[in-house]
Amino acid sequence: MLNAGCDASNASSIAHVMALAERDGCRSHGIFRLPGYIASLGSGKVNGNAHPRVMDAGAAVIRVDGDGGYAPLALHRGLPALIDAARSHGVAALAISRIFHFAALWPEVEQLADAGLASLAFVASKAAVAPAGASRAFFGTNPLAFGWPDREGEHLIFDMATSAMARGDIQIAARDRQPVGVGVGLDSDGAPTLEPQAIIAGGVQLPFGGYKGSSLSLMVELLAAGLLGEQFGFEAKQSDNGDGGPTRGGELIIALDPRAFGDADHWQTHCQSFFGTLMTLDGVRLPAQRRRQHRQQAVSDGVELPQPLYEQLLTHLA
Amino acid sequence: MLNAGCDASNASSIAHVMALAERDGCRSHGIFRLPGYIASLGSGKVNGNAHPRVMDAGAAVIRVDGDGGYAPLALHRGLPALIDAARSHGVAALAISRIFHFAALWPEVEQLADAGLASLAFVASKAAVAPAGASRAFFGTNPLAFGWPDREGEHLIFDMATSAMARGDIQIAARDRQPVGVGVGLDSDGAPTLEPQAIIAGGVQLPFGGYKGSSLSLMVELLAAGLLGEQFGFEAKQSDNGDGGPTRGGELIIALDPRAFGDADHWQTHCQSFFGTLMTLDGVRLPAQRRRQHRQQAVSDGVELPQPLYEQLLTHLA
Repeated sequence: MLNAGCDASNASSIAHVMALAERDGCRSHGIFRLPGYIASLGSGKVNGNAHPRVMDAGAAVIRVDGDGGYAPLALHRGLPALIDAARSHGVAALAISRIFHFAALWPEVEQLADAGLASLAFVASKAAVAPAGASRAFFGTNPLAFGWPDREGEHLIFDMATSAMARGDIQIAARDRQPVGVGVGLDSDGAPTLEPQAIIAGGVQLPFGGYKGSSLSLMVELLAAGLLGEQFGFEAKQSDNGDGGPTRGGELIIALDPRAFGDADHWQTHCQSFFGTLMTLDGVRLPAQRRRQHRQQAVSDGVELPQPLYEQLLTHLA
Repeated sequence: MLNAGCDASNASSIAHVMALAERDGCRSHGIFRLPGYIASLGSGKVNGNAHPRVMDAGAAVIRVDGDGGYAPLALHRGLPALIDAARSHGVAALAISRIFHFAALWPEVEQLADAGLASLAFVASKAAVAPAGASRAFFGTNPLAFGWPDREGEHLIFDMATSAMARGDIQIAARDRQPVGVGVGLDSDGAPTLEPQAIIAGGVQLPFGGYKGSSLSLMVELLAAGLLGEQFGFEAKQSDNGDGGPTRGGELIIALDPRAFGDADHWQTHCQSFFGTLMTLDGVRLPAQRRRQHRQQAVSDGVELPQPLYEQLLTHLA
């Protein structure tokens, strides 16, 4: 990233989130993203020397101007201010505009959970998903993430695209020539298809869960773009230069301090009994379980990259 | 409600939300609920003379002690304080505990939209839904609602159970002897069924959208019960007296003032262009459209009650 035109602060914050993704087995947000980062620096779309600026520190709503750079440095500067604000006010919001978000959202909600806060994060991305009932791309894959703090660090974290499948996972399926599931997307004629390549090239993704998932995707557009005055998914698609990197948008994070709500002493014990009872059910699995297993394995065994990706990266370094 | 043991303030706020539901064609939350309200007063479970108390007015987190009564009066008192808090702080939360919520959530987010605020509302209800992968009830139907203000009053509102189908709608299907859809529930052997009666009596409901909907249901439990120190769905099921009325729980509402985030003048125009473009897509429908059509028709033609419900109500009045 340094050779491609990022300054040291931006490069290290991006490297950090890619390494977190690889550690947690979250390949579609790991090193797989590097060619896209490099392309979007090369095309001049993204500012590799961005100086994100935190405004309104101390208020319940903290705004960050991302200066046209990637999200990680803006988050690195904004999250401490959000943590302070949530602790003073009980509830606070971080509104980051003028960023290019190309990573998962769980790193930010996990950092807030480490600080003892519950949180919700929303990002609207480039139009790629047809609203329920339609067959043309209008919503982004529009992820939302949730983090819930646990005293022993076993936070409850989820991070989901509101599309049936994350776009990065469809791209990986296309690269590996694997079919996708039913309901993931339509081809260029608006007909259901299991071919990832047909969805990406001229087709369209579908929201998860029919009308309900579609409503949630609409909500993410309104919160991450409408509220912040940033680009909606359809605007991001129109304005983007198609270099394969991320599109410009905003991110909204809401943080809640449990000590400001119920019983400051009792809430963690109460929630631990909830999780304990939940885990007695046959067949149940908590959202972050798979990621936690990958993390433990990565810490002991390291991380392996697929051969085709490794070869692709070598061409960038050459 | 007055004859059944409610004081005038509680009775009129309940009557108001039932009338709103009938007006909007939202039958499962209309007069259909009256027998449940009456049963839960008769059994002594709910306090018909509750005096909900608003605490911490002026802070960003407003707490309301519902005094063991129904939700509508607690909301009637708490929402004005939330509106003030969101306007002063930009973001604010209302945490209502010790209430019995037996209504839809869209009336509260619509009231906030009328005040120019975006909002999210969460309620955890009695265990009735199996987490994805499991076949025993643990989550409530756990609705979440979202409201987005529009200058001309055409707010974007949705209110969805995180179960595949709202419990009230399954009850109505059972009453009317209509099958439900695939994925709505399992029978008492854990096998998929289309029989609403088999789901209600000994079976279990399923979340919408598989693991993603299940994660959202888990989030609603944590926000409406864990955060507020109120009963989780499985606790509400254990503690309830089974009188057919609502179970005790909490409600969390987060309100956001768009003027504190992006461009105070531009955001509404920007969002109107978003909705305008969205509506040009073939096949698309906004979440509140059906309800708005019912509302217009009800204002001109009045509301009809189904004959069986009317006869059931007469037995209560006798």
